[in-house]
Amino acid sequence: MSGAAPAGAHWVGIDWGTTHRRAWYFAGGELAGRYADDQGVLACAPRFAESLRELLQRLSAPADSTVVMAGMVGSATGWQEVPYLDAGQPVTAWARQLVPVAGAARWFIVPGCCWQQGDEVDVMRGEETQLLGAWSWAPRDGWYLLPGTHSKWVQLRDGRVVQLRTCMSGELYALLSRHGTLASLMPPAAGGRADDPLVHAQAFAQGVHAAGRGDLSRELFGCRARVVTGRLRREEAGAYLSGLLLGTEWHEALAHGLPRDAAVCVIGCPALSRLHLRCAQVLGLEAVALDADAVQVAAWRALGARAMETQA
Amino acid sequence: MSGAAPAGAHWVGIDWGTTHRRAWYFAGGELAGRYADDQGVLACAPRFAESLRELLQRLSAPADSTVVMAGMVGSATGWQEVPYLDAGQPVTAWARQLVPVAGAARWFIVPGCCWQQGDEVDVMRGEETQLLGAWSWAPRDGWYLLPGTHSKWVQLRDGRVVQLRTCMSGELYALLSRHGTLASLMPPAAGGRADDPLVHAQAFAQGVHAAGRGDLSRELFGCRARVVTGRLRREEAGAYLSGLLLGTEWHEALAHGLPRDAAVCVIGCPALSRLHLRCAQVLGLEAVALDADAVQVAAWRALGARAMETQA
Repeated sequence: MSGAAPAGAHWVGIDWGTTHRRAWYFAGGELAGRYADDQGVLACAPRFAESLRELLQRLSAPADSTVVMAGMVGSATGWQEVPYLDAGQPVTAWARQLVPVAGAARWFIVPGCCWQQGDEVDVMRGEETQLLGAWSWAPRDGWYLLPGTHSKWVQLRDGRVVQLRTCMSGELYALLSRHGTLASLMPPAAGGRADDPLVHAQAFAQGVHAAGRGDLSRELFGCRARVVTGRLRREEAGAYLSGLLLGTEWHEALAHGLPRDAAVCVIGCPALSRLHLRCAQVLGLEAVALDADAVQVAAWRALGARAMETQA
Repeated sequence: MSGAAPAGAHWVGIDWGTTHRRAWYFAGGELAGRYADDQGVLACAPRFAESLRELLQRLSAPADSTVVMAGMVGSATGWQEVPYLDAGQPVTAWARQLVPVAGAARWFIVPGCCWQQGDEVDVMRGEETQLLGAWSWAPRDGWYLLPGTHSKWVQLRDGRVVQLRTCMSGELYALLSRHGTLASLMPPAAGGRADDPLVHAQAFAQGVHAAGRGDLSRELFGCRARVVTGRLRREEAGAYLSGLLLGTEWHEALAHGLPRDAAVCVIGCPALSRLHLRCAQVLGLEAVALDADAVQVAAWRALGARAMETQA
């Protein structure tokens, strides 16, 4: 990346998603504060500028701070739609393609990333920033997993996204454990929250292995079939479902070129990263969890420096 | 099957599911009436006997009619839990294993069916009756598809269930088109109902083909990726999703032994059967739709005759 931020510079990086946003404030080149709230794109549209000014105040950041934003804020439902960049570019290119918010010279949005191959197409908004952060922090080709509502599996080669595969696991887990046949199997856990899947480690592992048969729609019903035939206890159904959905991601990655001896870099919240590390362990594969906050800080350093050069 | 029902006999067959029930009344060996309502297991528990007596009145059937019931009425959430029979028995055996409702000499429940192989297990309740009907009507080995909320794929050999595969397609379609990311893509159609998927025949076919890549969790997100990159129109997203989910069933069946030159017998409502026939056509496979009502009538004839022998 091109050099460090100028001394005395102030800038803010924001991961602005559909339902939440997280912000990092840098003053004089140093991390000076963090803030998170539930003012995602859905909650604060269409008053984005006003909401951003409030956010700067909460961070005690100067009103004239440079701001770099990533995520759904750049989608059609966000503040300003910013085109996807082609995945063929190096991840470092994202810092060079910041799009100014119309009428705001110091506010920028990071473009999303679009990968295509034959009839396949996949997209991300926000995760490309984390990949840039990981690369800025410790350049390393290979496989990255960014788990979440929509898990992103990314293969980097020469610092370029050569494969992008998004799985709906998180969303499917939420839908299936709240509505319909499988939800009706699962007893509500204490406090109304589902158990940690690793409390039922064996059921989780069984789900991971069942995923290896590759027929997700059928294996989902298998969760019910196991309970009604007494092979699985009701309180284990959520853990089995979690193992099945996350295991599917790993089996699919193996089917699409993940070498069995590669270490997958997992960038995500600790709870989800922990489940994926267990998943890898069950399958005899290797995974390392990167510190998601450190990765994000590295990304904002690279992006903030570039945003200030852009204005200069 | 053992002979016909005795002359002058009265009996009623009921397909009693989770949310609906359908009933057929036979008098003197002839079909004398049909009735359907929304008094499924969830709606009428725990007053099953009372609800059944009301149903007999609506059918103008004698209060002392023999009654044979199939479906979720025999599950743990139904009237009386009836064990699953092992799939290794011929489908005709189901008529010989009717379970009397406790305290009611002329009322019977058909057991469900459990298929297992290695670590795989699958179950059905109600569909085994339709298979018995199809077999009584025209014995034929091969592949049967009973589409629905939970689609059943069944391979019969020598009149026995040698493979049972349940796919959650119908439930996944309902969940994904009502909640979450994909639902938010789809514009509400006129009258609040989704378009018939075959109105967007090309998008449906694209979904069927995409299913061939075999990664359902990833291909579901692909529906969104196609819309946000302009490859698919919003109004086509539902048809694409339908093609993807139903196509997944067909590709999974091929992967599990369905010969490419076999004709799959589809037993289901006309709307769903039509979608599956198109699915087969897109993939260059053959499917024939059986008349679901005729199949069910054949089943009740076989089951009614047997129930009356049981009492004799």
